[in-house]
Amino acid sequence: MPGEFDLIRRCFQTPTSHTVLGVGDDGAVFAPRPGMQLVVSTDMLVAGRHFLPDADPGLLGWKTAAVNVSDMAAMGAEPRWITLALALPEIDLPWVEAFSRGFRACCEGFGIDWVGGDTTRGPLNLCPTIFGEVPAGQAIRRDGARHGDDIWISGWPGMAALGLAHLRDALELVGEWSACCVERLHRPMPRVALGVSLRGVASAMLDVSDGLLGDLAHILERSDAGALLDESALPLAPLLAACRRTESATSALLSGGDDYELLFCAPREARGQIEALARHIELPLHRIGRILDKPGLWMQRGSGVTEAIAPRGFDHFA
Amino acid sequence: MPGEFDLIRRCFQTPTSHTVLGVGDDGAVFAPRPGMQLVVSTDMLVAGRHFLPDADPGLLGWKTAAVNVSDMAAMGAEPRWITLALALPEIDLPWVEAFSRGFRACCEGFGIDWVGGDTTRGPLNLCPTIFGEVPAGQAIRRDGARHGDDIWISGWPGMAALGLAHLRDALELVGEWSACCVERLHRPMPRVALGVSLRGVASAMLDVSDGLLGDLAHILERSDAGALLDESALPLAPLLAACRRTESATSALLSGGDDYELLFCAPREARGQIEALARHIELPLHRIGRILDKPGLWMQRGSGVTEAIAPRGFDHFA
Repeated sequence: MPGEFDLIRRCFQTPTSHTVLGVGDDGAVFAPRPGMQLVVSTDMLVAGRHFLPDADPGLLGWKTAAVNVSDMAAMGAEPRWITLALALPEIDLPWVEAFSRGFRACCEGFGIDWVGGDTTRGPLNLCPTIFGEVPAGQAIRRDGARHGDDIWISGWPGMAALGLAHLRDALELVGEWSACCVERLHRPMPRVALGVSLRGVASAMLDVSDGLLGDLAHILERSDAGALLDESALPLAPLLAACRRTESATSALLSGGDDYELLFCAPREARGQIEALARHIELPLHRIGRILDKPGLWMQRGSGVTEAIAPRGFDHFA
Repeated sequence: MPGEFDLIRRCFQTPTSHTVLGVGDDGAVFAPRPGMQLVVSTDMLVAGRHFLPDADPGLLGWKTAAVNVSDMAAMGAEPRWITLALALPEIDLPWVEAFSRGFRACCEGFGIDWVGGDTTRGPLNLCPTIFGEVPAGQAIRRDGARHGDDIWISGWPGMAALGLAHLRDALELVGEWSACCVERLHRPMPRVALGVSLRGVASAMLDVSDGLLGDLAHILERSDAGALLDESALPLAPLLAACRRTESATSALLSGGDDYELLFCAPREARGQIEALARHIELPLHRIGRILDKPGLWMQRGSGVTEAIAPRGFDHFA
C-alpha cells in the first residue's frame, strides 16, 4: 500500500506551465502578470453533503475543480492556479487515480496549473483553493447592481436539479433528457469565457450555486437594492420538456443550484453588446428582470399580477 | 440558531489592511507588491488525527493559522493573506467564536489579512490556505543543499512532543517543564523573522512538522545528498531537564514534529552571519551536522563511532 509521499508522486505531481515552483516544497511559488490582481476562492466539499459517498471519482474530480473555476468566472477572472487539500478515509489507489484524472482534466481544460495541496487521513473531504487573475480594478463584485439594471442569467439553470431529482427517483425525466440533466449535474461547465467577457459590462455578478433566487438575494443585499423578475422571461422551456411538470420545472429553475450558471446585472445600454456576446460565445443569455431601488423581490406573473416572493436559498446549516 | 451567513458575519468578517476585497463575494481580491512573488501553502487538519476533538477552540484556532504561517517562514516568505475553509458537525457558537478569536489573534500577530473561506456542515475539518510574499527568485526551497553545507536547527525541537506525551500520561515531566512543553504543543510560534532573515543565506530550508530526521530526509532527497549529524551537537539539554530520560528526550528531538522549528542548510562561510542573526532575533540556532555528497544519513555518536540511521518520519497513512 503506497504512503502519503508515494501517493503525492503518483497522483498529484503534474507539469505546470506558468509557475515558478509547484508541488513538493513547503509552498508553491508563482506571480500574477504585471497589472493583474489575484482573485482567490476556496471551497470545501464533504461526502454525503455535496456529493454521494459512492460518486464516480472521475466525475467528482472534475466537479471539485469546476465549482472553484466557476467562482473565478463569477468575478470576471481568468483561472490560473489551483491547490487541493484532501482527507481520505483510506488509500484506494484506483479511486485516487480516477479522481486525480478528473480534477486534472478540468484544470487542463481551463489552462490551470495544479501547484500544491495536502493529503491526510480522515472522513472524505475535498478542499480546493483557486487563484485567478483580473486586470487591476476590474473584478466583478456582488455589490454593484444599480436601479434600472437588467438582470441576466446564462444557459439553462435548473437542469442539474432535475438530474439530481431523477437520480433520487423523485422525478421521471423524458427520454434523452435524463442523460442531459444528469450530465449537467455531474460535469458542470464553468462559464469562464462569459465571465471574462463581462468585465466592464456587468455591474454585479455571481455564479448560481445556492439557487437563482437565493443567490439573487445576495446581490440585492450587497447592492442595497430590490428586483422585479418577469415570469414569462424565465428560460423554462427545456426544463418543461424534460419533466413535463410546471411546478417541478419552476422550482428547479428558481432554487436549483448545481448548474453554476452566471447571474449578472448590467445597465440597459449594454443590451445590444450582451446579445452580441451571447451569439459570439454560443451561450444563451436570458434577460429575466430588473433591479429596483427599493428592497424586496417581486415576480411579475404571466397574468400581469406582481407578487412579492421569498428567496429560497440553500443554507448549509438549515 | 444562526445560519451559515449569520455565522460568517459574526465570526469570520474581519477588517483587512492590504486587501482590495475580503470576505463576502465569490472571491477575495489582492495583489502582491511590485517585485514580489507569491508563496502559497494549504493544510488540512482533521479532528482525532491532528488535534483532539475536545481541544480548546481558542488554542486550536491559533494553531490552525500558525502551522500555515510556519510554511511561509520555511520558504523565507512574509505571510500576508489567509483563507479558511471549515466543516463543522454543528454550529456551536461559543466554540466557533473562541476558535475564530484564536485564529484571528495569530493572523493579527503576524500582520496577515483574513480574506475569505467557506463554511459547511460535516465532520470537523479545518483547511487554511496561506499566501506570502518573497522577492522574486528568493524563495528558500528544499532542493538547494550542497556538499559541505552546515545543517542548522532553530530553537528547542522536541518540547512539543514531550508535551503531547505528558498529556497522554505516557511520560511524566519535571515541575514547570510540563506547562512549558504543553504550551509549545498548543501554541507553536512560527519562525517568520528567522525565515525571512535567511533569504540569500540558507541553501535549503523547511519547517519540522514530521520530525527532524524525517524532514531532513526530504531535503536530502530533493537535494540528492546525504548528511552526517553530530550527536553531541543536538540541543538535548532542556528536553533532558524536562523528562530526565535520555531515550525519550532523543526520540522527541529527532522524531517529534509539532514544534515547527526551522531546519536549514547553509555554506560554512555563513556561520558568523548566522550566529549574529541568532543573537539579533534572540533565538538559539544549533549547528547539528553537515551535508555529504553521498546519499544516506549518519550519526556521529559521542563515542566517536559513526552509524547509519534511518529517518523516522510521520506518514499520515502509515
